[in-house]
Amino acid sequence: MQNVPVPFSAGVIELSKLKATTMQDTEQLYNAWKTIMQKAADINNAAAVLGWDQEVYMPPKGAEFRGRQLATLAGQAHELLTSDEFGNLLHKLTGAPGLNDVAQNNVRLSLEDYEKNKKLSAAFVEEVSRLQSECFNAWIAAKTQSDFRIFAPSLTKMVALKRRQAELLGYKAHPYDALLDEYEKGATVSMLDPIFEGIKAGMPLMLAKIKAATQVSNDCFHQHYPKQDQWDFGIEVLKHMGFDFEAGRQDYSEHPFTTTFAPTDVRLTTHVNENNFASMLWSCIHEGGHGLYEQGLPEEQYGLPLGAAVSLGIHESQSRIWENCIGRSKDFWSYFYPRLQARFPRQLGKTDVDTFFKATNKVAPSLIRIEADELTYHFHILIRYEIEKALIEGTLETEGIPARWNELYTKYLGVMPADDKSGALQDVHWSHGSFGYFPTYTLGSFYAAQFYEQAKTDIPGLPEQIRNGRFKPLLEWLREKVHIHGRRYTSEELCERITGKKLDAAFFMKYAEEKFGTVYDLSNSK
Amino acid sequence: MQNVPVPFSAGVIELSKLKATTMQDTEQLYNAWKTIMQKAADINNAAAVLGWDQEVYMPPKGAEFRGRQLATLAGQAHELLTSDEFGNLLHKLTGAPGLNDVAQNNVRLSLEDYEKNKKLSAAFVEEVSRLQSECFNAWIAAKTQSDFRIFAPSLTKMVALKRRQAELLGYKAHPYDALLDEYEKGATVSMLDPIFEGIKAGMPLMLAKIKAATQVSNDCFHQHYPKQDQWDFGIEVLKHMGFDFEAGRQDYSEHPFTTTFAPTDVRLTTHVNENNFASMLWSCIHEGGHGLYEQGLPEEQYGLPLGAAVSLGIHESQSRIWENCIGRSKDFWSYFYPRLQARFPRQLGKTDVDTFFKATNKVAPSLIRIEADELTYHFHILIRYEIEKALIEGTLETEGIPARWNELYTKYLGVMPADDKSGALQDVHWSHGSFGYFPTYTLGSFYAAQFYEQAKTDIPGLPEQIRNGRFKPLLEWLREKVHIHGRRYTSEELCERITGKKLDAAFFMKYAEEKFGTVYDLSNSK
Repeated sequence: MQNVPVPFSAGVIELSKLKATTMQDTEQLYNAWKTIMQKAADINNAAAVLGWDQEVYMPPKGAEFRGRQLATLAGQAHELLTSDEFGNLLHKLTGAPGLNDVAQNNVRLSLEDYEKNKKLSAAFVEEVSRLQSECFNAWIAAKTQSDFRIFAPSLTKMVALKRRQAELLGYKAHPYDALLDEYEKGATVSMLDPIFEGIKAGMPLMLAKIKAATQVSNDCFHQHYPKQDQWDFGIEVLKHMGFDFEAGRQDYSEHPFTTTFAPTDVRLTTHVNENNFASMLWSCIHEGGHGLYEQGLPEEQYGLPLGAAVSLGIHESQSRIWENCIGRSKDFWSYFYPRLQARFPRQLGKTDVDTFFKATNKVAPSLIRIEADELTYHFHILIRYEIEKALIEGTLETEGIPARWNELYTKYLGVMPADDKSGALQDVHWSHGSFGYFPTYTLGSFYAAQFYEQAKTDIPGLPEQIRNGRFKPLLEWLREKVHIHGRRYTSEELCERITGKKLDAAFFMKYAEEKFGTVYDLSNSK
Repeated sequence: MQNVPVPFSAGVIELSKLKATTMQDTEQLYNAWKTIMQKAADINNAAAVLGWDQEVYMPPKGAEFRGRQLATLAGQAHELLTSDEFGNLLHKLTGAPGLNDVAQNNVRLSLEDYEKNKKLSAAFVEEVSRLQSECFNAWIAAKTQSDFRIFAPSLTKMVALKRRQAELLGYKAHPYDALLDEYEKGATVSMLDPIFEGIKAGMPLMLAKIKAATQVSNDCFHQHYPKQDQWDFGIEVLKHMGFDFEAGRQDYSEHPFTTTFAPTDVRLTTHVNENNFASMLWSCIHEGGHGLYEQGLPEEQYGLPLGAAVSLGIHESQSRIWENCIGRSKDFWSYFYPRLQARFPRQLGKTDVDTFFKATNKVAPSLIRIEADELTYHFHILIRYEIEKALIEGTLETEGIPARWNELYTKYLGVMPADDKSGALQDVHWSHGSFGYFPTYTLGSFYAAQFYEQAKTDIPGLPEQIRNGRFKPLLEWLREKVHIHGRRYTSEELCERITGKKLDAAFFMKYAEEKFGTVYDLSNSK
């Protein structure tokens, strides 16, 4: 039996009958397991291509069949990863002799996933996938007409399905915990509630100081910036960041996102508003940060746990370290601003770098999450978090979302959407059924601040490098500290390995006090 | 058992144990069969999206993983369609009571496909798919450097695989017959040899007459036509033809092609040469004709034989009726030429419509197939046909292709490629392993001429409609006569249904004599 080569597709059943008693048996079992994992990854990556095309190029009438195609792929991958043969392989591999450290970690994480996946039937997974396509198209139509009622019926079905998913997955304290765990392993309502309470308690003081200080203007962003010139500047920044355009590209979409078909094919999308340069600028750097993480995952672990990102919180730390810690820093613009001025002499010729730096950090309550400043941003998340919890608990109906949304925006931010388009319809996430996703944005910001503090210690001369447009040492640090490990460590473990401490919101507050102290000259206003 | 609902994914094995003794049993069996068929279609359509992206947008480093993803999808679809359960369903459905005419035809054709598919293992299908990706990338690299030797090693593997495929599929007279049959059911060397002998015998006389006549010039095409303006004109023509841009789109690619993800999502690609307007123009109308066929297939037969095109020959008849019979007619340009002049006043302001019409039909031996005129085109096909036969017979090695190519171009067309790029590397097809495909181009031209002759009889006032830019009656005729039937009839049956006659090359010769008689004033030169 030992000399039988591992077949590419069939033969799994036979192999699963093997007892892994020798190292050579183990190697065969591991290869058989890897073959199934990578086939499932191929199918999931194919689905990612279809999903990307759906949001970037697909003509409108293509939506219906695309929905069923995505559902079929989801079902096929799920079947592979929940088969008894696959489970048998995993059980035999657990504790088998001769597995090296990498293989052991892959098997450990794969078994966890398997036990979780088994809780959802292939039919359920296909149902979610089909409904995602329906919901996405309803959301597009609703947003175009700025009418939440067009979206509500599909969303109601999605919420029902997600509540069912929470029951199927199981939870201890709150059904929303089961959904949170999908995006951030270990995250719960009881962990997040205090974080958001902290924001509610601590942030208003800083916001009040800022409100009392001399205001900064971001008028320079609100001029006419031609689409193509914006695009070209975005590409220039991405190239400097180290995004490899031989292994990825950027396209237009309604809502910016990053998706990956392989570490060697990572797709960014961005959105351009010709009358607000900020829109493209931050999307581009943000998605670029996500893209660098995906391009940095180890190719040889394709389709395996050690070839995948840790969690959405950690993913978001990578986008935010680039967008906020780097992209909104004075060092960054001391390099890029002369280049930006050269592209837009009419718009920026008379604005100095200090004014521009301050404009990138203007703090003011606003309606649109993706255009919010770094501070009030977290209230946007808090509002979504409260609405999602209520939907999943069943204490809020989807029809009531716009009213609740507007109420909470008034309460926390003192602003009131004029229409659904700039209110409850602004985000794509609910159309994907991604309940539990938004909180990872706040976690990501906090991780980013904590990691960046460490990077400044670990990398000598980092600020000067940035002032010279040299981002390679930072990227290498991120590769080594985060990207290369895949899912080997949990978010918590990774944070401790990198910074020696657990996630601590104090790093974010310190970072914010420093930056906004400079921007708003708060030391003088004490 | 009768009241058990047909499950979406599982349950096939149980159903296959049913004997179809009642109409209700039959309905369940048919639904179970349809579910598998449509899942396989979903997977194949997903592969089409990946294939499209590969040629249109994929960054270069994405190639390797894309190759394995396509292979996995091909294997998954093949597994579904060759499973014993699927075969059992088909055997039970054959002759089962209560199947309507549509269902009977679907089952009949599906059984034929099944018996053919069973001859190739999933591993073989995956191997072909993987090699297609390798070969395509080698072809791109070879064409870029104009060096056939870069392509040869991959192509050698592909030829070996295709010879193996011919053996697996089986054939009576010639191994190439097995490959031809994949694209044009029933086509054989013994059917094609006389057709090509006919071309070799009859065409030179017409070409000699043309050569002796006053020459026409197509210099008007060889000016600088800006890319975007060409693109816009192409879109205008496609819209007039009736291509539905809500159910399809056009993108750029190196080699123009049409692919379909559903009848509601059909993708055309075109190539623009700024110094030769003809390149984009004919590609665009040609691919548009293919696209109209795909958009005209019945949606409710998605994934089933009656929802698919008959054959490549019939597909090609649809592209060529638009490209040649319509697009190169005086009626067509009497409508479009003023519009074209308005877009390109500098290039065409001084050229009259008659000169332009003649330019679209200039006959001259040339190197590039897709830029060839309607007559010498068939020698391009003949050359490929002879090389393919020799490769599959094993009487020619891939390394010998460029020499043989150049020898045959000199013999039949009196021209000699300066390099591989304009010689044996010009077509993408061999990189896909599509041996047996090229002859369908000639069949398609002949079908087109025969169909068009019939259309002129069936549609009163057709020439006048075309002169007024009204293509709807023609499109409706094509829909009714060809598109709507899917694979219900073979090419041969369809041709007889539409024209009352078998395919007869005399229609093409008559069409050619008429058109080129006008263009070259051949009646006077007698």
